[in-house]
Amino acid sequence: MKVVTFGEIMLRLAPEGYTRFLQTDKYLATYGGGEANVAVSLANFGEEVSYVTKLPDNEIGQGAINSLRALGVDTTKIVRGGDRVGIYFLEKGASQRPSKVIYDRAGSAIAKATVNDFDWEEIFKGVDWFHFTGITPALSPEMVEVTLTACKKAKEMGVTISCDLNYRKKLWTKQEAQLAMTPIVKYVDVLIANEEDANDVFGITAGNDVTKGEVEKDAYKKVATELMAKFNNLKYVAITLRGSISANDNRWSAMLTNGKDFWFAKEYLIHIVDRVGGGDSFGAGLIYGLNHYEPARALEFAVAASCLKHTIEGDYNYSTVQEVLKLADGDGSGRVVR
Amino acid sequence: MKVVTFGEIMLRLAPEGYTRFLQTDKYLATYGGGEANVAVSLANFGEEVSYVTKLPDNEIGQGAINSLRALGVDTTKIVRGGDRVGIYFLEKGASQRPSKVIYDRAGSAIAKATVNDFDWEEIFKGVDWFHFTGITPALSPEMVEVTLTACKKAKEMGVTISCDLNYRKKLWTKQEAQLAMTPIVKYVDVLIANEEDANDVFGITAGNDVTKGEVEKDAYKKVATELMAKFNNLKYVAITLRGSISANDNRWSAMLTNGKDFWFAKEYLIHIVDRVGGGDSFGAGLIYGLNHYEPARALEFAVAASCLKHTIEGDYNYSTVQEVLKLADGDGSGRVVR
Amino acid sequence: MKVVTFGEIMLRLAPEGYTRFLQTDKYLATYGGGEANVAVSLANFGEEVSYVTKLPDNEIGQGAINSLRALGVDTTKIVRGGDRVGIYFLEKGASQRPSKVIYDRAGSAIAKATVNDFDWEEIFKGVDWFHFTGITPALSPEMVEVTLTACKKAKEMGVTISCDLNYRKKLWTKQEAQLAMTPIVKYVDVLIANEEDANDVFGITAGNDVTKGEVEKDAYKKVATELMAKFNNLKYVAITLRGSISANDNRWSAMLTNGKDFWFAKEYLIHIVDRVGGGDSFGAGLIYGLNHYEPARALEFAVAASCLKHTIEGDYNYSTVQEVLKLADGDGSGRVVR
Amino acid sequence: MKVVTFGEIMLRLAPEGYTRFLQTDKYLATYGGGEANVAVSLANFGEEVSYVTKLPDNEIGQGAINSLRALGVDTTKIVRGGDRVGIYFLEKGASQRPSKVIYDRAGSAIAKATVNDFDWEEIFKGVDWFHFTGITPALSPEMVEVTLTACKKAKEMGVTISCDLNYRKKLWTKQEAQLAMTPIVKYVDVLIANEEDANDVFGITAGNDVTKGEVEKDAYKKVATELMAKFNNLKYVAITLRGSISANDNRWSAMLTNGKDFWFAKEYLIHIVDRVGGGDSFGAGLIYGLNHYEPARALEFAVAASCLKHTIEGDYNYSTVQEVLKLADGDGSGRVVR
Amino acid sequence: MKVVTFGEIMLRLAPEGYTRFLQTDKYLATYGGGEANVAVSLANFGEEVSYVTKLPDNEIGQGAINSLRALGVDTTKIVRGGDRVGIYFLEKGASQRPSKVIYDRAGSAIAKATVNDFDWEEIFKGVDWFHFTGITPALSPEMVEVTLTACKKAKEMGVTISCDLNYRKKLWTKQEAQLAMTPIVKYVDVLIANEEDANDVFGITAGNDVTKGEVEKDAYKKVATELMAKFNNLKYVAITLRGSISANDNRWSAMLTNGKDFWFAKEYLIHIVDRVGGGDSFGAGLIYGLNHYEPARALEFAVAASCLKHTIEGDYNYSTVQEVLKLADGDGSGRVVR
Amino acid sequence: MKVVTFGEIMLRLAPEGYTRFLQTDKYLATYGGGEANVAVSLANFGEEVSYVTKLPDNEIGQGAINSLRALGVDTTKIVRGGDRVGIYFLEKGASQRPSKVIYDRAGSAIAKATVNDFDWEEIFKGVDWFHFTGITPALSPEMVEVTLTACKKAKEMGVTISCDLNYRKKLWTKQEAQLAMTPIVKYVDVLIANEEDANDVFGITAGNDVTKGEVEKDAYKKVATELMAKFNNLKYVAITLRGSISANDNRWSAMLTNGKDFWFAKEYLIHIVDRVGGGDSFGAGLIYGLNHYEPARALEFAVAASCLKHTIEGDYNYSTVQEVLKLADGDGSGRVVR
Repeated sequence: MKVVTFGEIMLRLAPEGYTRFLQTDKYLATYGGGEANVAVSLANFGEEVSYVTKLPDNEIGQGAINSLRALGVDTTKIVRGGDRVGIYFLEKGASQRPSKVIYDRAGSAIAKATVNDFDWEEIFKGVDWFHFTGITPALSPEMVEVTLTACKKAKEMGVTISCDLNYRKKLWTKQEAQLAMTPIVKYVDVLIANEEDANDVFGITAGNDVTKGEVEKDAYKKVATELMAKFNNLKYVAITLRGSISANDNRWSAMLTNGKDFWFAKEYLIHIVDRVGGGDSFGAGLIYGLNHYEPARALEFAVAASCLKHTIEGDYNYSTVQEVLKLADGDGSGRVVR
Repeated sequence: MKVVTFGEIMLRLAPEGYTRFLQTDKYLATYGGGEANVAVSLANFGEEVSYVTKLPDNEIGQGAINSLRALGVDTTKIVRGGDRVGIYFLEKGASQRPSKVIYDRAGSAIAKATVNDFDWEEIFKGVDWFHFTGITPALSPEMVEVTLTACKKAKEMGVTISCDLNYRKKLWTKQEAQLAMTPIVKYVDVLIANEEDANDVFGITAGNDVTKGEVEKDAYKKVATELMAKFNNLKYVAITLRGSISANDNRWSAMLTNGKDFWFAKEYLIHIVDRVGGGDSFGAGLIYGLNHYEPARALEFAVAASCLKHTIEGDYNYSTVQEVLKLADGDGSGRVVR
Repeated sequence: MKVVTFGEIMLRLAPEGYTRFLQTDKYLATYGGGEANVAVSLANFGEEVSYVTKLPDNEIGQGAINSLRALGVDTTKIVRGGDRVGIYFLEKGASQRPSKVIYDRAGSAIAKATVNDFDWEEIFKGVDWFHFTGITPALSPEMVEVTLTACKKAKEMGVTISCDLNYRKKLWTKQEAQLAMTPIVKYVDVLIANEEDANDVFGITAGNDVTKGEVEKDAYKKVATELMAKFNNLKYVAITLRGSISANDNRWSAMLTNGKDFWFAKEYLIHIVDRVGGGDSFGAGLIYGLNHYEPARALEFAVAASCLKHTIEGDYNYSTVQEVLKLADGDGSGRVVR
Repeated sequence: MKVVTFGEIMLRLAPEGYTRFLQTDKYLATYGGGEANVAVSLANFGEEVSYVTKLPDNEIGQGAINSLRALGVDTTKIVRGGDRVGIYFLEKGASQRPSKVIYDRAGSAIAKATVNDFDWEEIFKGVDWFHFTGITPALSPEMVEVTLTACKKAKEMGVTISCDLNYRKKLWTKQEAQLAMTPIVKYVDVLIANEEDANDVFGITAGNDVTKGEVEKDAYKKVATELMAKFNNLKYVAITLRGSISANDNRWSAMLTNGKDFWFAKEYLIHIVDRVGGGDSFGAGLIYGLNHYEPARALEFAVAASCLKHTIEGDYNYSTVQEVLKLADGDGSGRVVR
Repeated sequence: MKVVTFGEIMLRLAPEGYTRFLQTDKYLATYGGGEANVAVSLANFGEEVSYVTKLPDNEIGQGAINSLRALGVDTTKIVRGGDRVGIYFLEKGASQRPSKVIYDRAGSAIAKATVNDFDWEEIFKGVDWFHFTGITPALSPEMVEVTLTACKKAKEMGVTISCDLNYRKKLWTKQEAQLAMTPIVKYVDVLIANEEDANDVFGITAGNDVTKGEVEKDAYKKVATELMAKFNNLKYVAITLRGSISANDNRWSAMLTNGKDFWFAKEYLIHIVDRVGGGDSFGAGLIYGLNHYEPARALEFAVAASCLKHTIEGDYNYSTVQEVLKLADGDGSGRVVR
Repeated sequence: MKVVTFGEIMLRLAPEGYTRFLQTDKYLATYGGGEANVAVSLANFGEEVSYVTKLPDNEIGQGAINSLRALGVDTTKIVRGGDRVGIYFLEKGASQRPSKVIYDRAGSAIAKATVNDFDWEEIFKGVDWFHFTGITPALSPEMVEVTLTACKKAKEMGVTISCDLNYRKKLWTKQEAQLAMTPIVKYVDVLIANEEDANDVFGITAGNDVTKGEVEKDAYKKVATELMAKFNNLKYVAITLRGSISANDNRWSAMLTNGKDFWFAKEYLIHIVDRVGGGDSFGAGLIYGLNHYEPARALEFAVAASCLKHTIEGDYNYSTVQEVLKLADGDGSGRVVR
């Protein structure tokens, strides 16, 4: 399978360990972004995957490219130009203290990119699957158009489209999101969301209080059903279920539906190393799963993959198919592999 | 509100992570000390706070000052002179292995300071609140006198006085502590203690076994009531309640009384990052709380503040009023703040 | 008591924290190996202990020696020569992600050592106890002979012999192990195993599923009884009981028998810092215990010692007798030692 | 003396040691900027100094403030608001490989600040000296006006004004610089420049090739004389003389003139630790010098101060008056101070 | 131009800074090896380059691949298999203390590779240039044959061949080297050597004492002339000229001849950051140069490229064509590039 | 040869690289002290050496012991007790900025030791050589007596005595030093000094200005001759000659005399990594040299040994006899040792 993902990759600057922003004089520098994370994860699963974005022609932009190339992602379709790489600062939370993100992404090369920067016909040649998230159109009005253009071309060329709704309130209002996402989601085959995204973007609510760590199956079925009713093009809707016990401990599972059947994956109690990119690793797992297994196993694969991501530093999921299957098939005991 | 705190600030040298003393060739250098920690915490809450101590005129002393100035604590009342900054070495415990402290504080500038070093009349001009701990008089016989002098002058000038009992057996015997603290506590308005301090210094015992993690309300009421009986000048007595499950996990709460009403805060189960300074952050929270809220909320504020401190590296509490209120008002789920 | 331990010491290279192999550009370098870990632990308990191995005459070999000398292990009986120090790379697991070990030990000086390298008569002069693990004979066919030679000489000179079965499937097959270990264990006085080792080497099975974290006393009694039946020279058999909840959390206990009585130690729930060397620290604790206490207390000492090891970075157990006794006698609350 | 400096303070992100951008996964985070560097240096000399800028109300902005407060700079006049702190990435050069700077400063709070953000009348109350550099007006057309407004008010209130010409081609063209700086420099009392700045901004050329490391006195006299001819308000012109042998080794000196006398400082051959902020430390030294010594000694003080800066990591000059005088008065032998 | 390089890539483990082996508990992990270094350098110059080797199917092998992919080297022709990645430990020298290398490369996947592992016909499809060093055949007798096979096929397919003589006395004797290299060099078009290699492998001596830092042109002409006389297939011979002043300071230049003309590059006095890979970066520079410039400029390019490598940590040369040309064309002043 | 050295070993805390005290939040922790440094160096030369001091019974004291044991120094004669380990903070200088030492050694276990702590008869059994420095008696009046007692007993038992004068003005006045050292030096066989020590302690002056880097042979002959005239027990006097060019670059040599012949070693121009312990490494080299070579070669050995020390981080000299001889016999070119 040949996959293209499209979006913004940022320089992630995080103090070491649990050090807070005001304590640090050192930032660990990695790269990440919703669609780049999916690309890396798929490459680590052995898929052929190409990442599309725009990056400035300096060492920070090149560093992002090198981080992707290192893991086997094709970067030859990345457009070079623009002024800066978006940055996000990440302070890791612990126990009752939440993680904190400061975005410094305004004016990034991709946010200022235009429709003419991307030749989608060329990009989608021989491609089977196209993935993006709701963050991409949120970057600028121009990017709404770019995303729509990409979707149309993908559909035209028979490429399956997946989208992770991923609402970011720092980037746009709910109204702007709804206006932009409605026509875009009409081209989507596989929609991923958590219950907050569905509410924020389309006003579809699950009706339970996630901060209490409660996960109610019926509520999630309702959200998925309404999404599929609203967008009859959707073949699958997946909803991730996070129960936040503390910044260190989360419950994690997901639901998948084809509109008829509803599959619920087993739930993991995770002692978290790094939770950023957890949703993206689910997306990558789902794309891989739907292409290699029947839906129930695809979902288990996706949840196990993202469970492992929570135990790995940085945005990227350095898990292999073997590791994911070992967990999905039952061994979460963490015994040493010698 | 204008606050003065007074005591010893030490250079804290701690191996990285869970590395033990005999494994390390690197010490992370921060500064801390009961009253300095309170000063920093209050400054982070936006209060005007001045820290009084004596520090040698070299870079180690200056480093302590810079660490305070960085966080907005007024350091202009610090006396310069003496030979050395006290040091404490801290090895962080894990699971069943306790944290370990080696004190190297003998001969510090403040321990050798004299009554003439401090002009309390000048120091307390325009000040509303004076805070110190039982460690300060424990530093030397001379410091007992300095502390008493400060209390008398504070009382005379209408400054509210708070004291955290904080018995340190490495510094003096129980007999010495009782002898020195009895006249001092007679000037105190707000007394903070845990059940061990009350026992060690005044022989008042709660009668339960803290290592078992049991927290019995009646026992604590008894301690507070006896303290208020012994010192009828006390307006408030606060008792912190720590349930030590392991070096990584503690239960944490506190009780407050005005002699008539008894308030118990909600209890937090904390996955600890750094527990040193936990008591001090409670003190700072209580001082802030009593000045901004009614007693019950003041106590909740203090416990939430110190809960957050347990998730932060170093002695200092880098929590803001907003962060404390967010936790006190209910969200301990640790979800990412974007 | 004078102890000799014999085996391979390796250079351990581990990425910092929970960083994975493919993320790291830095390895923390320590040394470790079953019998070296036992030697260090006994030295930290104050015993006179000598470590025997073969190490190349370069700085990597010297570094291994220095790490042992630093902690008071006698290294004057170590033979210098050969080409390389064996290496193992360790990736620390978290939550559902297991730790991972890559061995790069082929061709190490000790694996290529010959019978003539060691003068056991000289080595065992004045020695009371000889310890090795099943890893030592697994290194090469020649090492099977060396180990057997050592055992015979030890027996001849009245030295007590202990052996930790420690089956390593990367080094030899179960058939090879059984063939080699059977004659060797005939000289052993104290045998240590976990239920997997007994199964792998001698086909003796406990019959319960350890990944489920279940610890069934009868099953372990059965294993020990069968071992003692097979080798009537055995005075004690100890079986360690690990319940793997996740890579972060384990249950840990052990059983000891003299063939008549069966002692079970209390079980610890451990929040793990580093689990490598956990079994070795049990062995060291048992050797110490059997020489200073009656069996029940010896076992409690051994389990408490190895519980503490799980909270310490690296292979070596930096615990003292005082620390172990404090835990064995009841305080696992992790309260700060000031 | 009471000083105000005004400009942009940036987050400086530099790989460790001589690591290049494309090799690093870690950035050391400090803060710096021409006028902030001058402020810090003056504070380290014991002067009362206030730094004026605009910084966003997040932890990155607060970190900049804390770095200044730590060293005793008054930050109470800093305006909070705007979106981001400007960033510059610094790769340290070595031998023939030059240092490299990537600016990511567009859209910073100060670049987007307006005339109404600053109440200069309030800021200059009781102030003796005002310092800024040519970078400040270069940030935006609005900042040209802000700078001009500040200069007018300073002049009106009898504040001495110094300006370091500091042309930055990434921020504006030579034409823009000339247009903006000409009216501004009309208010300046003390002008600092290197021979390139004078050429870039005012087309005044020294006529020698700095890359050859040649320093010709007459050429520099000519530049200064022409500057004083063009701006007859100037009381002093100082020109720094850098001879670049390699990224590791520079010659460093300066010239000062009052239009009548020309003073040349002794030249230092510097083995560089960090050359960024070298010019700023000269400016701070000159401001201090002119207020405490006659011109010749003022110049020697300034050059010695900046020589020491080249031996210190980061933008800030952590040198004291005593250290500078010790060097200026003759001891550059680097013998250990015990 | 499409290039293939072939050889061993090793894990390089180096203590930080100038720390010695016996002082360190931390190794910086990078990858390197003569031909891999050439591949990376050419990729950084923008050439299409493929690296051929054999690497085990574990994370250490994958790490080597990722390091190459990150910099744009094609790794799809790398064979996976074998047991281990060769390691070399590097201690960086300073002043009179030399750098020290401990090789731990025996048994590496490539050393144990066989002729059947590589399909040269497939590898050389569309390739213009093939590069290897004398280290490759030195790895094992089998590798002599592999290298010879590769050369024959390359010649057959019209691929230009370059070889860096690079004698390693730890790998084979001079006699073995001469025996193996003589038939191999018969296929080479461009031969690179330093005066020691020529002597060690072919007994051709320059006759001057390099430790004295003397570089005598005539002696080097003699060496090159004799090499060309011995191998009349050679089109170019390049000889690198290193004058070792100390571990920190070297003189560096080179000579190139086509048998008729002799070109000498300008000499650089280098303050060294990391001298390992210096020769390889010359090779890469020469390959690039000979394909883009006439010989004299090609040589200047190669020497400037390798001069820059000496200022960069690790084996790899992170220099671009622009940076090399800037130095070759004259600016070695190390002034900051803003 | 069996050697005993006696003095204070301190915890050395140094910021990384060239970071200044006020910039650091991390201290690298090593151990050092004049006589401990000599002991380590001799152990690295393969001598049997025992270090005598008093150290507290905590982990800081044990850490010092472990650092010595690691390198093969016998520590069984170290007395345990007292309150603290002395500390010195070291800031590394660069170029014109000198290194800076803050001593925090008051109240150390050895400074408070008494005559009864040491059983010299036992200590000197079978010992050939006793070494100490002028720092030891400077620690306290009691230590003057302890040192004198040791010297008398050594003389009585036929042990050769060497002393490095090493005047420390922070510990005592010149008058106190002269009073104490005069009777002590009467027992010394080999006296080591630099020209400042001789002046400070005995008022014997060389008459040249070291800060100018001038080294005048006659002046040093004069100093040595006067010392030998004053103490006719002296068999050898050695004077180290340091020419301080900058904190990075020093000239280094030494002179040795038996009162009749004067030997001058070759002079090294050293690019310094760490200059602390440079004098001690000379002392160790001299002790080794005088026991294995004739005087001229002994001196060359000593100077080469200390030259190498300047290239090594920390107080300890990690040089071997082979490395020293390689340098003394001529190769200071710093070429890689593969």
